[in-house]
Amino acid sequence: MERAFFITFEGGEGAGKSTLIKKVKEYLESAGEKVLSTFEPGDTKFGAKMREAVLHGEEKIPAETEFFLYLVDRSYHVSKMILPALEEGTIVLCDRFTDSSVAYQGAGRSFVPMERIEEMSNVAAKGLSPDLTFYLDIDPKEAFLRLTGKKDRLEREDISFHEKVRKGYLFLAEENPHRIKVIDAATSIEEVFAQTKEHLDSLLRGKRTKV
Amino acid sequence: MERAFFITFEGGEGAGKSTLIKKVKEYLESAGEKVLSTFEPGDTKFGAKMREAVLHGEEKIPAETEFFLYLVDRSYHVSKMILPALEEGTIVLCDRFTDSSVAYQGAGRSFVPMERIEEMSNVAAKGLSPDLTFYLDIDPKEAFLRLTGKKDRLEREDISFHEKVRKGYLFLAEENPHRIKVIDAATSIEEVFAQTKEHLDSLLRGKRTKV
Repeated sequence: MERAFFITFEGGEGAGKSTLIKKVKEYLESAGEKVLSTFEPGDTKFGAKMREAVLHGEEKIPAETEFFLYLVDRSYHVSKMILPALEEGTIVLCDRFTDSSVAYQGAGRSFVPMERIEEMSNVAAKGLSPDLTFYLDIDPKEAFLRLTGKKDRLEREDISFHEKVRKGYLFLAEENPHRIKVIDAATSIEEVFAQTKEHLDSLLRGKRTKV
Repeated sequence: MERAFFITFEGGEGAGKSTLIKKVKEYLESAGEKVLSTFEPGDTKFGAKMREAVLHGEEKIPAETEFFLYLVDRSYHVSKMILPALEEGTIVLCDRFTDSSVAYQGAGRSFVPMERIEEMSNVAAKGLSPDLTFYLDIDPKEAFLRLTGKKDRLEREDISFHEKVRKGYLFLAEENPHRIKVIDAATSIEEVFAQTKEHLDSLLRGKRTKV
């Protein structure tokens, strides 16, 4: 049996990924699909420790350490959760994946070039690449207005960091136009879902064009 | 001020690294040097958690996850302990470093080519390369006879794994003859130290030849 579709959701904080994923899951399930919704970092017992170390540690950790913690999480997540689900025919929706590393660690922190971040992330992903990626694009300033509650480390970064991240995402989308769909996230959730649904339907109809 | 010398010790389990490092530390200190002796993985609070996850976890973790855990440890260790010591003029002796990743993860587990392991390890090491590396070479079968006490995961691997690791080390030594000194570790500690001392003295006299 061929593996099921692997679909990822990318974007800055406050872009509305969680809400969209919930709607996509409902939509696919109502179409009779088996769906697993998961996220990075931290949706495994092992990964949760990593997430805690990165986001809620007291101490400022080096950029390299942060990056490799994400790769620990990803490699475990792919091996133990994502690949087994895909292989048994379950569509996997993942909140953040390799593109997040490239945008945040590559374009945002830029301690090594984006291509190197991508190569290393691909080793952690065991070569698994999404069939479709939705990038929820929104001006960081606008997204920040949406955020409530206690901000973790990433959310506390200044706005210029998030602007670099956005540029990284847009660059990736330009480089991978068949895989990455840029969705205007500054609009209503209904409109965001409508844009997403179109691409989903064409993927499910087997009309997708491989990069 | 130029940074102090960074000296690493490599080799299989039971090769006698710890005993040698102790003697080298005493020798350098008696010559008036400030010396820090450290090890990978796990000689920082942060790294200790990683070491525990790799060596004493109940569950079998994916090879990629194990590798990236080591890089988390290394990147933190280099940033927070090794570089600061070197920069204040302290000679750093480190039990295992990048060559261990290449030998164990690259040659031993071989989930990606050795060169890729080396590239990724260098990112974790922030480009820091040892001035001198002692590889304690011994037949794995002989080394195992020396080991006592409870064996951790690495020590439980079968002998063919350790033979691949040894080949990896010898390959690295051949590629980096000026940096890596192969020491015959099948002999007495006095003899091992005598071989080591010669290279140390020539490094301290500033006679080292850069690769």
